Amino acid sequence: MEVYEALRTRRTVRQFKPDPVPDEALNKVLQAARWAPSSRNEQPWRLVVVRDREKLRAIGETARTGGFIADAPVAVALVMDHADQPRMDGGRALQQMELMAWSEGMGTCFVTLPPDQESRIKELLDIPPDLDLVTVLPFGYRPDDFRSRGVPRKPLAEMVHFERFGNRAPSRV
Amino acid sequence: MEVYEALRTRRTVRQFKPDPVPDEALNKVLQAARWAPSSRNEQPWRLVVVRDREKLRAIGETARTGGFIADAPVAVALVMDHADQPRMDGGRALQQMELMAWSEGMGTCFVTLPPDQESRIKELLDIPPDLDLVTVLPFGYRPDDFRSRGVPRKPLAEMVHFERFGNRAPSRV
Repeated sequence: MEVYEALRTRRTVRQFKPDPVPDEALNKVLQAARWAPSSRNEQPWRLVVVRDREKLRAIGETARTGGFIADAPVAVALVMDHADQPRMDGGRALQQMELMAWSEGMGTCFVTLPPDQESRIKELLDIPPDLDLVTVLPFGYRPDDFRSRGVPRKPLAEMVHFERFGNRAPSRV
Repeated sequence: MEVYEALRTRRTVRQFKPDPVPDEALNKVLQAARWAPSSRNEQPWRLVVVRDREKLRAIGETARTGGFIADAPVAVALVMDHADQPRMDGGRALQQMELMAWSEGMGTCFVTLPPDQESRIKELLDIPPDLDLVTVLPFGYRPDDFRSRGVPRKPLAEMVHFERFGNRAPSRV
């Protein structure tokens, strides 16, 4: 899938086919994180692949807004190991994973983990307490009848300013 | 360009052809930010497009590690407007812009802005003090002789764990 098409069509996915995700497809998603940029090229990502059904269920029960993780064939916990900019670099890596998954016919959904839920999931996965668990991303193929509820976006004109904040008239320099 | 190819080949670019970036190409980059996901679909990005040479020069002089911004045909200041997760959502939007630019033959480089430099650039661009300037991304076409210095990455095996942190043996469930 072309980059622009992936960016334009990507949607959040919370329902997955039960089909397993083959190693080759999962590997592309993991590589997408590996090739993400990071502050001073620290490469601080640690990726915990979870396929065990009991663990997936336990994570889904713990993540208050991520119950659907229990039904995914696989999930990847995104962990930052003493990163300079854990949220920024985490966001860049997860966006690369999300786009890669989408272009392979899969989908995912970012789940915010408040500190208590983050701690509990770190225990479940033996993640050392001093590392930062950004999120757990479930991955699976999109259902055949997948229909996005649509993702409304403001028009670009409401977001873009020219030369200085507040100036809406395109500049030609 | 295919998603996997873009993810795999993308490099940081700090030198640009002097050629202007046509509106159509710039528009794709801005759309890439617009279509990024955001916490609660807040869409908190504000994008300040800068083509004015004096402004680009002033930004390049202010950003200690971003002198090359002065030589780019265009730059986009990524501003977050009272976002829940400014760094995370900022990182996701900027990664989408970076991949879109790369697939169009352009490039960019993330520049970290310590608070004093952030404040000064906000003044230059009339950005209200209570908004969060994540970075200024220069965009331009890659030189014909662009050669990446290579981006070393650890092997995936050093980043990936299975079922629990510390377990390096792939699981089959």
